[in-house]
Amino acid sequence: FFVVEGVRDASRALDAGLRPIEVYLCPELNPGAAAADIDRVLAKAGLAKQFTVTAALMKKMAYRQDPQGLLVVLEQPSWPLARALEDVQAGGAPAASDELWLVAAGTQKPGNLGAMARCAEATGCVGVLVADPVVDPFNPNAIRASTGAVFRLPVVSATKESIVSFLDRRGVQLYVGSPGSPLCYTDAGFVGPTAFVIGPEDSGLELWWLEIAARWADRGRGGVVSIPILGRAVDSLNASVAAAVLLYEAVRQRCAHVARPAEPDRMV
Amino acid sequence: FFVVEGVRDASRALDAGLRPIEVYLCPELNPGAAAADIDRVLAKAGLAKQFTVTAALMKKMAYRQDPQGLLVVLEQPSWPLARALEDVQAGGAPAASDELWLVAAGTQKPGNLGAMARCAEATGCVGVLVADPVVDPFNPNAIRASTGAVFRLPVVSATKESIVSFLDRRGVQLYVGSPGSPLCYTDAGFVGPTAFVIGPEDSGLELWWLEIAARWADRGRGGVVSIPILGRAVDSLNASVAAAVLLYEAVRQRCAHVARPAEPDRMV
Repeated sequence: FFVVEGVRDASRALDAGLRPIEVYLCPELNPGAAAADIDRVLAKAGLAKQFTVTAALMKKMAYRQDPQGLLVVLEQPSWPLARALEDVQAGGAPAASDELWLVAAGTQKPGNLGAMARCAEATGCVGVLVADPVVDPFNPNAIRASTGAVFRLPVVSATKESIVSFLDRRGVQLYVGSPGSPLCYTDAGFVGPTAFVIGPEDSGLELWWLEIAARWADRGRGGVVSIPILGRAVDSLNASVAAAVLLYEAVRQRCAHVARPAEPDRMV
Repeated sequence: FFVVEGVRDASRALDAGLRPIEVYLCPELNPGAAAADIDRVLAKAGLAKQFTVTAALMKKMAYRQDPQGLLVVLEQPSWPLARALEDVQAGGAPAASDELWLVAAGTQKPGNLGAMARCAEATGCVGVLVADPVVDPFNPNAIRASTGAVFRLPVVSATKESIVSFLDRRGVQLYVGSPGSPLCYTDAGFVGPTAFVIGPEDSGLELWWLEIAARWADRGRGGVVSIPILGRAVDSLNASVAAAVLLYEAVRQRCAHVARPAEPDRMV
């Protein structure tokens, strides 16, 4: 189970087909103008149990400091991808030729994970693989920053070993983003099935990932790429910005001269 | 004057050469481990007046909910660019051939403005032009999200008319990002001096900008470009992500096969 707060995120979750369990309403906290929006949410929420609570209780329940008067408890989606990640025996379901993956390695802020999911969804990724997770994709800040992406796009956690083995079995190439690399991202080829690994902003990427990428580079299946930083005042990019720059370069290389490429097929 | 809080942002501001006026310290709020960092800041702050305050007072002074025990008041940088924007008579200082600008139009969240400044600095922009500003680039959230970019990169506010006239006088082309445009950003040419206009995320860009861009397109000096959204769950990108995707496409087009392009000259 997880909780969404406010009309906008609740609507997104219900539109994505997630199952509502309980709805908490606090009319005191809702301006009259929101009534129609809330009625729409309630209509979508169907048979979920409804409770009316006081403002004091809603403020205790909610994560936000200034909650709206609506909070919905929903069932977490269960992604087939979660099983596929662990099922080593399944072996070798080959990747679609244009498959894109984003791997969040060591992401520490829920907002960053949500923003990365938003970028992954915008670029047609199959899913976001969260390595050795520290943050929950259904944290309220992650939900908000994802603008609903986490309701439809599988964001699935696993050990880094499972993730690398999974991508290997599918024949996906692996590119790790790291500011130190001499290989500029625009000089690498992202046309085949590709996964991008983005580390945490502050502490930097675990050495383990750089070693894996070097080994995969030897096999012609990826490497370590950098995004050039031209200014003097900053030395890094926000994690979701770095993810977007790499993912959109992959989209650009794939679609070259097509203004609006077709939607890639999804595995899940 | 403006305020920075905490060791990291204070160090960045002082390293950028900004002039400190007053330093407020609260030893109670600083763990012993921070002593060396704070001493370094104080050494850099030189002749600024120092005050020691209680934790209760520091919590009132600070913007953050959990302040560190360090707060520095500094003089705002004064950018020659601010005068150049208003000086219509100066007429026609031609742009450097690789000049890049970011125009923030109607940006409503300080964090977004700071994140956009970070991307602008990372891609070697000459400056960020804030049209009809709603937010202050020296708001604590803007400072933090910029990771210090606002201390070195001119982030200058003006009316949208002044900004467009300034870019026109310099011979810069103007591309407005808007999801509705049939022109994919990768099909436009950003090799000459270029400014990108990014609107607010929620309310969308003012019609005025689309009309200006259409008029400039007729003159062969820009247009309206979109970034394709391939997913089903999201319909837009974060403002700083959109800025980064456009700016890095310009860098890519300019540098084609050079792994680490040289730093562009700065006007200011």
